[in-house]
Amino acid sequence: MSSLPYSQAAFSDAAKALMSTTAELAALGWTPATSSNFSQRLDASHAVITASGADKGRLTEGDFLAVDLAGAPVSSALRPSAETLLHTQLYARDLAGCVLHTHSRTQTVASRLFARAGRVRIEGYELIKAFAGNTTHEAAIEIPVLPNTQDMPALAAEVERLLDAGPLWGYLIDGHGLYAWGRDLKEARRHLDAFEFLLACELDLRRLS
Amino acid sequence: MSSLPYSQAAFSDAAKALMSTTAELAALGWTPATSSNFSQRLDASHAVITASGADKGRLTEGDFLAVDLAGAPVSSALRPSAETLLHTQLYARDLAGCVLHTHSRTQTVASRLFARAGRVRIEGYELIKAFAGNTTHEAAIEIPVLPNTQDMPALAAEVERLLDAGPLWGYLIDGHGLYAWGRDLKEARRHLDAFEFLLACELDLRRLS
Amino acid sequence: MSSLPYSQAAFSDAAKALMSTTAELAALGWTPATSSNFSQRLDASHAVITASGADKGRLTEGDFLAVDLAGAPVSSALRPSAETLLHTQLYARDLAGCVLHTHSRTQTVASRLFARAGRVRIEGYELIKAFAGNTTHEAAIEIPVLPNTQDMPALAAEVERLLDAGPLWGYLIDGHGLYAWGRDLKEARRHLDAFEFLLACELDLRRLS
Amino acid sequence: MSSLPYSQAAFSDAAKALMSTTAELAALGWTPATSSNFSQRLDASHAVITASGADKGRLTEGDFLAVDLAGAPVSSALRPSAETLLHTQLYARDLAGCVLHTHSRTQTVASRLFARAGRVRIEGYELIKAFAGNTTHEAAIEIPVLPNTQDMPALAAEVERLLDAGPLWGYLIDGHGLYAWGRDLKEARRHLDAFEFLLACELDLRRLS
Repeated sequence: MSSLPYSQAAFSDAAKALMSTTAELAALGWTPATSSNFSQRLDASHAVITASGADKGRLTEGDFLAVDLAGAPVSSALRPSAETLLHTQLYARDLAGCVLHTHSRTQTVASRLFARAGRVRIEGYELIKAFAGNTTHEAAIEIPVLPNTQDMPALAAEVERLLDAGPLWGYLIDGHGLYAWGRDLKEARRHLDAFEFLLACELDLRRLS
Repeated sequence: MSSLPYSQAAFSDAAKALMSTTAELAALGWTPATSSNFSQRLDASHAVITASGADKGRLTEGDFLAVDLAGAPVSSALRPSAETLLHTQLYARDLAGCVLHTHSRTQTVASRLFARAGRVRIEGYELIKAFAGNTTHEAAIEIPVLPNTQDMPALAAEVERLLDAGPLWGYLIDGHGLYAWGRDLKEARRHLDAFEFLLACELDLRRLS
Repeated sequence: MSSLPYSQAAFSDAAKALMSTTAELAALGWTPATSSNFSQRLDASHAVITASGADKGRLTEGDFLAVDLAGAPVSSALRPSAETLLHTQLYARDLAGCVLHTHSRTQTVASRLFARAGRVRIEGYELIKAFAGNTTHEAAIEIPVLPNTQDMPALAAEVERLLDAGPLWGYLIDGHGLYAWGRDLKEARRHLDAFEFLLACELDLRRLS
Repeated sequence: MSSLPYSQAAFSDAAKALMSTTAELAALGWTPATSSNFSQRLDASHAVITASGADKGRLTEGDFLAVDLAGAPVSSALRPSAETLLHTQLYARDLAGCVLHTHSRTQTVASRLFARAGRVRIEGYELIKAFAGNTTHEAAIEIPVLPNTQDMPALAAEVERLLDAGPLWGYLIDGHGLYAWGRDLKEARRHLDAFEFLLACELDLRRLS
């Protein structure tokens, strides 16, 4: 897709910023057992992403690689995460500057519980204002829940249909976890935190009602 | 409301004290996704308050501004939190030296669960003695739950009615979070911790009964 | 009760050891809103105990005082905790070298839930072996739950009856928290951790059955 | 079983690596009240294991000893954990390079809840791929639950039957905790984290369904 080189300095900056974020997310227990993956846009045709299998609480720059927007490694012998395509499809459509994929217990349990419904409807929370584009708690959001599969192109095609349907900052995959994104790392993190918080509240309310 | 200057040293001290407290509250997960706001009284006609939108775990002095007791910024280009009036109305009535507004999961879930009742009644806990003015666990407290709205003057008017009705150290807003205060930062923090603890116990007891 | 002086060095050592433990317990959230109190035996006629009202996560040596075994302050202007007698009665009977009184959410909720029964029966856990004197998980333990009261001599008299009835390493007070002790700080801490863990498991099993 | 000496340097390296891991597990609350034990293979006929009774959050090299593969101490006056045989039987069969035995609340509660069934069936989770040998979330795993006993040779014989029956990376003991292992420390830790996470999700789903 691209034979242009990318800036090594930009790669290094993006990897460092992601390392700091992933260390925080690992400490929260959202990346159990070397799961989860994280990426940031580098330039018009590249992104930086975590390699497969690393412990997300102890990443070094050597655990990151550059990929093109079709998800293929660029000048690296590292194996990118199997789910790289789910990151790069968002960059290819210019919808994101950063993608954070985590596996918290809340996200995983919510994905199982709402898999049949295919979505989680969230309304009545002030924190809905945390999502870019929402200015009132009176809005409602729907978080899609996709069936899990090891067939990444099929999963990416499902996501394309979601993205065609309207604005979105994240989705769940059944038994698997959450994809959240934003125009930059800070916004992606704010969206991730808001999804986690709102899903946790919804699960609590179900236990209590 | 005031054209008198405030002491820059007092501003700086108050901001530093709040930074330390907000970092602790953020680490507890009570300020998700840049939510929550915090203030302290500066003098007869000013308070210091967090600016809108900052990550409460990483505040610097530049994230605070001075406001008058009607909630208007004083010598600052920063935008105060939309909810500034809910802070300054307590200072204008001389009821508080510090106001802490947080969004913990427990506070948010309790506010949803008790919104229809309009209050949470708490009794039978030794920790009721943590609220200034209570000397026995045999007292009961009621935490009001207000409907959420983006219309701050309307919400502030609701709070005025609560304050007219009798002594109060905090209230919930539905789907939103908790306002807690005290005569100084230490007392406000003690009240906040006691509200959080007692609400968490009440939710647990409902799950278990 | 005693006009003999106590060793200032022993006082200082005991206070330091308690500070380290209370900081850990505060970080776990077991001492909300300046609640809880902690003591250690100093010699035949004295103990060191936390003063009333301090934040248990930030104790300094100045937050401790010496008391005699009837609970009266010795050479100190500090006010001992109102519950000092519940500590010193254990020292007076030579049953403990250290007493840890905490208010965790689990302890408080369990005390409410089992108040009517007057006891929590715990059996079937390997961790029962953590209590001094138990060598098999086949033992069962009963944790008494006492009604709460601000009348300390009356509460202490209830505890005397419990202590007369047989070996005990701790009890709950309704809506209040747990008293746990051991022959030294290390054993008291092990007992406290075991009580907390076993009560938490019992509450979980009730939610799940 | 072996009169050959072991390498003191290998002993020291293994103890250091285990100390770092046990400090993390203790901070997570998975080793309450001096419970739990941890080991690593040293060579063809020795393993290093934690001594009985130490606080797992504060281990020093002096809290470890070498044992032969029948579980007997080698050149040490320390008492090995009563459960040493459950570690060494895995080394004797060449099934593990590291064994981690913890007592988390989730593990303990799950072991009680599924004791009668004798197993916990786990399916539908992406994280099943965290176990060596699984390449798809479509696999299911079964975690055996053994009755608790203080008779270690009898318990070890039960485990032998499980190991004969097919590939396994861990099992629960009723009211007690989890044994997890891997070909090295990193893999054992990944398996432990995956077991904990999946059991926690299963308990949550039962509370919510």
